[in-house]
Formats: sequence, structure tokens, C-alpha cells
Amino acid sequence: MAGLAEAAARVFASNRYTFQYALPSPKLKLAICRLMLDRGVECSPEQVFLTSGAQQGLSLLARLLLDPGAMVFEEALSYPGFQQSIDSYSPSVVTIPTRSTSGIDVDSLEQQLASGKRPALVYLMADGHNPLGVTMPFSNRQRLANLAREFRVPVIEDDPYGFLQYDGKGIPPIRALESEWIYYVGSFSKLLAPALRVGWLIVPVALIQTLGTIKEAADINMNTFTQWVVAEFLEMGGLPAHLAHVCQEYDIRRRAMQSALLTEFPEHCSWQMPGTGVFFWIDLPQSLNASDILQIALDREHVAFLPAEAFSRGKRSNGMRLNFSGCNTKLINEGVRRIATAMKY
Amino acid sequence: MAGLAEAAARVFASNRYTFQYALPSPKLKLAICRLMLDRGVECSPEQVFLTSGAQQGLSLLARLLLDPGAMVFEEALSYPGFQQSIDSYSPSVVTIPTRSTSGIDVDSLEQQLASGKRPALVYLMADGHNPLGVTMPFSNRQRLANLAREFRVPVIEDDPYGFLQYDGKGIPPIRALESEWIYYVGSFSKLLAPALRVGWLIVPVALIQTLGTIKEAADINMNTFTQWVVAEFLEMGGLPAHLAHVCQEYDIRRRAMQSALLTEFPEHCSWQMPGTGVFFWIDLPQSLNASDILQIALDREHVAFLPAEAFSRGKRSNGMRLNFSGCNTKLINEGVRRIATAMKY
Repeated sequence: MAGLAEAAARVFASNRYTFQYALPSPKLKLAICRLMLDRGVECSPEQVFLTSGAQQGLSLLARLLLDPGAMVFEEALSYPGFQQSIDSYSPSVVTIPTRSTSGIDVDSLEQQLASGKRPALVYLMADGHNPLGVTMPFSNRQRLANLAREFRVPVIEDDPYGFLQYDGKGIPPIRALESEWIYYVGSFSKLLAPALRVGWLIVPVALIQTLGTIKEAADINMNTFTQWVVAEFLEMGGLPAHLAHVCQEYDIRRRAMQSALLTEFPEHCSWQMPGTGVFFWIDLPQSLNASDILQIALDREHVAFLPAEAFSRGKRSNGMRLNFSGCNTKLINEGVRRIATAMKY
Repeated sequence: MAGLAEAAARVFASNRYTFQYALPSPKLKLAICRLMLDRGVECSPEQVFLTSGAQQGLSLLARLLLDPGAMVFEEALSYPGFQQSIDSYSPSVVTIPTRSTSGIDVDSLEQQLASGKRPALVYLMADGHNPLGVTMPFSNRQRLANLAREFRVPVIEDDPYGFLQYDGKGIPPIRALESEWIYYVGSFSKLLAPALRVGWLIVPVALIQTLGTIKEAADINMNTFTQWVVAEFLEMGGLPAHLAHVCQEYDIRRRAMQSALLTEFPEHCSWQMPGTGVFFWIDLPQSLNASDILQIALDREHVAFLPAEAFSRGKRSNGMRLNFSGCNTKLINEGVRRIATAMKY
């Protein structure tokens, strides 16, 4: 908070035109390129399109790529906000299986493409998957980049969580491996503060002008004040220390949840400790139904989680998404204990 | 700038949850209700929907009200940003004549409705019309409110300029006369600063939840930081003095433009001095074509304005929109002189 307050004070002191109609902040675009380089992504400011958070990035890309009834490839478990952003186009959704151990099933994706299907877009998450928490292995990223290139299919890589790494530096985003067909969606919401509404796309230069026209119709392309605050904060060098602090604290919470799950959860539940992001995903045995457990958990134990059905396209999965970033370790222990109790009714 | 900086500092000092995911600011909704009361509009916070500027308000209302191919009533000269916000629905646009002396032609609107046409929405501006600068007379507002009620047709009253009044307090918005069928669109962009991206809708309570879902898909319903900055600024009592200052300065520029036009512009051009907003509209005689003059003005006189074709739906009009808020009086004199010169080639 102190760093952002200082950044805002500098913006007020330095540049009175910041509050006037203005172009998206060139300074922030440059800072984002530097930030992406830490993750192994090379891009230029001309390829960066600033958005009002990642959700707007998805919504603008949907508008750019989808005609009514367009075909979309989506993971069987996926972020509901993406589903909201495409639903108004009445898309024809092809569900690609996804695994809680390795993310999107690249074999299945390849089969669909090889069979002749050509989606208007593929949507996926490679790091800190929502809801699976999973990290896609590097070899799968390479195969996916190659498939996108070979079949000339735009892939939206949604990456709100990729900067939250707990076991070393992590793996480069798919965008690091392919710059023409991977459209990267980033956001400061999980790194700094969601209420700033600052996100970005990295896309081929040829798409930038059309995205600008689409954003102009949506909300005028110039929410520059918070862009400048974030740019100033980055220039002050505030992000690395902040991110290190956040990751350290989230790591403590992640380990606390892992311990609590090992202690409290019944046999035949299975999960991996996530290496990035903010979610654990618990696969449940057939004897336990996530939606039934949720009802009991709410009614009798006053605790909530998100069940698989909140994320399912097509065939139902059976599992639960638990967030570990939002509560301290004491509440995590208590929450896991209560959910385990709800499973016993 | 000092007032906004102070407001931002207070937000940083007072409420750390402001930067977390949060509901739209209740404090700002209440402050907007008080502000609207000054214009004669009675509304409750439950009827206020906060947006990322007025353009987003239009875009969300379009999404709410329009199915593909829906019928829309629009003035013959109208804000191009509205046209952008509806174009993706391939609407069937019915053009209602509009006059540079009195705004939308209510007789014509009534004939269209009486003939059986039922648009999904009517779009208009009653104050500081863009591009006509005109103020709709009170009697026309009453008739329009009655028509909306009688025919049960939603009317979007776009009002970014209505707080900029130069000849007394002005006339209440149409929303003051009819609360069920007039959907009011407001904004702080022209009152405080466009880069804050804070606007609002006043709509029936029954529509608020659906608008929330639509905004969630567009950009998540919580750009709260700048909402709190504006709310704090209003609570500090900063707006009346700021608005008085802005209106005083704009009035000086308005009078300067009026004088310059009287001195420099040729015979047979006609205009009214606007009582609100930021635009003069000049009707041109047949011997002068606005688009031709623009080309000469750009090439030889290095001055620009917006010609009628930028705002026309259907039949071409012939006129020019001149902004008087953005330049000081010296530049206004010089600009008007150059445009007059361009007319003589």
C-alpha cells in the first residue's frame, strides 16, 4: 500500500496530462516487456495492448476472433469468466480433456486438429491453472506451440497466476516458444491489486489497431491513471520485493493446506501440491460428490469451496477447488477440517 | 489536481480493502444520488450502476437491450461512440430527424411509434448534444417522457455534458420526468477527469443484476479504486467549486468562439451559441461542403474540426462541429480565423 501510495503521489506530481484523454501508457508497455523477459518471453511494446484487467483481455479477444457460432476449443475444466466472455457468440465448444497432473491433453488436441477441425481459438492456462492448480510440463508446451504454428490456430494463453511461483523460477509461458499464434493474457490483479484494473495482452502487431477499435467501443481506450500508477511503481523497483513477499507468504499457506489435507482428508481423495497459482484441486472418489458435499459444508459447517460443476463444460467431473492465498494458516486448518467433517455426513 | 491527489491519499490511508476484489462503491452511489438531486433527478443508490465511463454504460445497455437485428431509433446526427457500441448487433436503425435549434424531432418520433414501430431502444442527448450542442426544450422533454411511458420504449438519455451549464441552472434531464423508461447515462469524464474512468447509469432496480453479470463478463465488476477516489473527492466537497471554475472558464471560451465566428465566418453560415456542453454546430449553405473544407483546412491551414459525415446516419447533413473547451481564447480566435480562410479557397 505504501508503495502504491507513493507511486500515485508521483503521478499526481509529475504529469497533469495523465488525467486527460491520452494514449495507453508507453512507459507501462515498456515495463511489461522487461517483466516478461524475466519469464523468458521476448516481446516489444508494439505487441503489448493494455486492458482493464485480464477479463477485459479475454472479452476483447473473443470479440476479435469469434463470429456467431464459431468453434472454440476449451479444456473440460476451465475458468468460468472465459465461458461468460464467449457465450454471447453462441459458440460451438469442443471440449478437450484436461488432467489434474499435466493440464490440457495435447494428444487429444492434436487428434481434433488432425481430424480437420479448425477452431477460431483455443483457450488454456499453462500455469496455476484455474481450477486445477496444475503446471503444464515444458514438453507439452513445446508440442502445443508447434501445433498452433502448424495448424495456424490462435491459442489464448491466460496467465494471471504465472508470476506466483513457489518452487524456483518455473517454466516459460508458451508465448516464449511461439510468438505468432500464442496470444498471451497478463494481469497485475494477482501481483499487485485487482482494483487497479490493469492487465495486458501480448499479440501480433497486426492485431493491435483492431483491438483498439474494439476497446474504444467498449469503454474508450484510455484508462490511463491506474496504468501510470503501476508504471511508476514498477519504475520505483517495487515489484520484485513485493512479489517475493507475496510468494513467500503464499508458500507458507500452500504448505499449511497440504499438511491439513494430509491430516484431515479421507483416503481415495487425490491431489498434487501446486507449484504456482493459488489453488489446490482435489479429485474425489465416486463415493463422494463435490456438489453434495458443498451443500452440507455450507449448511452445517459454514465453509465454502467451488465444486467441479462450476468449471465443467460438457461431461461432469467430480472434484473441488480450494483457494490457499486468501486465508491465514489458522483459517486454512480450520476450513480444511470443516470440509473433511462435511464429507463424513 | 490537488484535490484529486488529496482524495487519493485519503483512500490509501483509510481503507486497505479498497484494492481487493470488492463491490462497487456504495459511498459513490450515494454521492451520485445527491449530485443528481441538484439537477432535479430523484433516484436511490439501488438504481445506480457504476461503470468505467459513459461509453461502457452505452456498451452494457446495448448488450442488455439488443438482440441481433434489433430496431434502434437514433438521431440523424449522433455520437459515433454509440454507433460503435451497437454495430456488432447489426441493428435496424431508424433515423429520427434532429434540429440544431431544438434537438430530436419529437413529432417525427411520435409518428414512428404511432405507425407501430417498437424499437428496442431510443438513443438521444438532451443537453450539450454531440455534435449539435443544442439543449432540448422542456416541453419536448415532457412529450418525450410521455411517449416513452405510453409506448413502453426504453430511452437512453446520454448526458456527459449536462453538468456544464453556462446560462443559469439549465433544464432537468428527461430522467427527472420519467423514472421507468428513461435510462440515464452519466460520467465524471467531463466534470473531473476522463482518465479516472468513472461513470454511472440510473436504471430501474430490476435491471441492475443483469447489468452486473454483463459487466462481469466484460471486465469484472469492480474497478473500485478510482470509484473511491471520486467518492472521497465528492465527500471533501470539492466538486461544486471545481465545476463553477470549469464552467466559468468554458463560458469565456464559448463567448470568444461566438465573437470569432461573428467576425470571421461568411454569410449564410448559421449557428446558435450553446447553453451547455462543449460544442458549436455550424450549419453550412449548399455552396460550402464541410468535408471539402476540412481537407483544405488540414492541408493548407493546419487546423481541424469534425464534419457532419462523422456523425451522420442515413441522409447526409452539411455542417461542422467546433469544440470550444479544449483551447484557450487565443487559439480559438486563430483556429476560427483559419477555418474561415479555408472556406474561401
